[in-house]
Amino acid sequence: MERSVRGLDGAAEWPAVRALIPKLEGKRVADLGCGFGWFARWAREQGAARADTDDPGIEYVIADLEQLVLPEGAFDFAYSSLALHYIADFDRLIKTVYRALVPRSQFVFTIEHPIYMAGDRPGWLRNGEGRRIWPVSGYAREGARTTDWFTKGVLKQHRKLGTTLNSLIGAGFTIRHVEEWSPTSEQVAARPELAEEVERPMMLLVAVER
Amino acid sequence: MERSVRGLDGAAEWPAVRALIPKLEGKRVADLGCGFGWFARWAREQGAARADTDDPGIEYVIADLEQLVLPEGAFDFAYSSLALHYIADFDRLIKTVYRALVPRSQFVFTIEHPIYMAGDRPGWLRNGEGRRIWPVSGYAREGARTTDWFTKGVLKQHRKLGTTLNSLIGAGFTIRHVEEWSPTSEQVAARPELAEEVERPMMLLVAVER
Repeated sequence: MERSVRGLDGAAEWPAVRALIPKLEGKRVADLGCGFGWFARWAREQGAARADTDDPGIEYVIADLEQLVLPEGAFDFAYSSLALHYIADFDRLIKTVYRALVPRSQFVFTIEHPIYMAGDRPGWLRNGEGRRIWPVSGYAREGARTTDWFTKGVLKQHRKLGTTLNSLIGAGFTIRHVEEWSPTSEQVAARPELAEEVERPMMLLVAVER
Repeated sequence: MERSVRGLDGAAEWPAVRALIPKLEGKRVADLGCGFGWFARWAREQGAARADTDDPGIEYVIADLEQLVLPEGAFDFAYSSLALHYIADFDRLIKTVYRALVPRSQFVFTIEHPIYMAGDRPGWLRNGEGRRIWPVSGYAREGARTTDWFTKGVLKQHRKLGTTLNSLIGAGFTIRHVEEWSPTSEQVAARPELAEEVERPMMLLVAVER
């Protein structure tokens, strides 16, 4: 994928995500499901605080997000990119993040949009007039979705958008911004393959405050 | 429609909506786009305050919601059922409602869900396996949608779910609950025609606090 090779610059949603991120200078940042660690590197460039244990200021921990334990009040900002839709116990993780943050701090994350995830056969179809449509089904049937992505049988967890927001509210967060990402016209002009992202949202960007 | 004949009892989403409504006893209530006035009658049964001008405690006003003016701080609760997706200037109306409410009061409304509204040909299709799917297209193209409903060329206004929430946040409201309504299994058992509402949400229920 372009984002695997080019990092944040290869992720078309990154400008929209970046706009949600507060100043990181001197801040202690948790990145959940960091993948190649692009965000951690960028955060360090923005002046995010060094970790206690590691000279470059980034501590990578291999942990199961379903079982994650974080120290309380230890972070000034939490972030997660396209990881939380793999989590079955979203409520548990969100409560863990809430406790790990200091008051008035922000949590910004992206997940696959439930419109993209709901159906059992994700993929474009054509309607009777030959126009491209995205098939939605089973939107209210929350739970596991199995797809083939890099490898067969990747397990994702479909939740309604409302369920995700209500979990955050229930944990004590205040919703600050909800963005069903779509490319700008400049982005579509530069990368015509992004045009389909206007038809249905693939990604959801959420910013909340503890 | 069943709801036109039977009132609130004919609206399958009503139990879910009612669960979001605070105690109305003694409260001054604004119902925007009240239709047959079912909610006003119910609110009076719950003890909502009498209006100053009208003995039964309900004052009906014919007004264009696009131009609505409400007195500031005059209401303890605001409500709207399936009306606000006809409004082009949603931001203006939301700010008007915000100013009309007293601090710490609630605003609960339902609208057509943007998944239901986005496409230019709303209606069930079948996928290659013959399963029912709802076609989504143009989700990020916000603006007018014309459909035939009772009469030809009914004009609705499609907004992304995120846009609706961000407008509320921008006006000063705190998001309390976001529900993409679907029927309970008991409701589907009693009214099998509701089963399709599990496949894609037709209605969005939102509760916010000033």
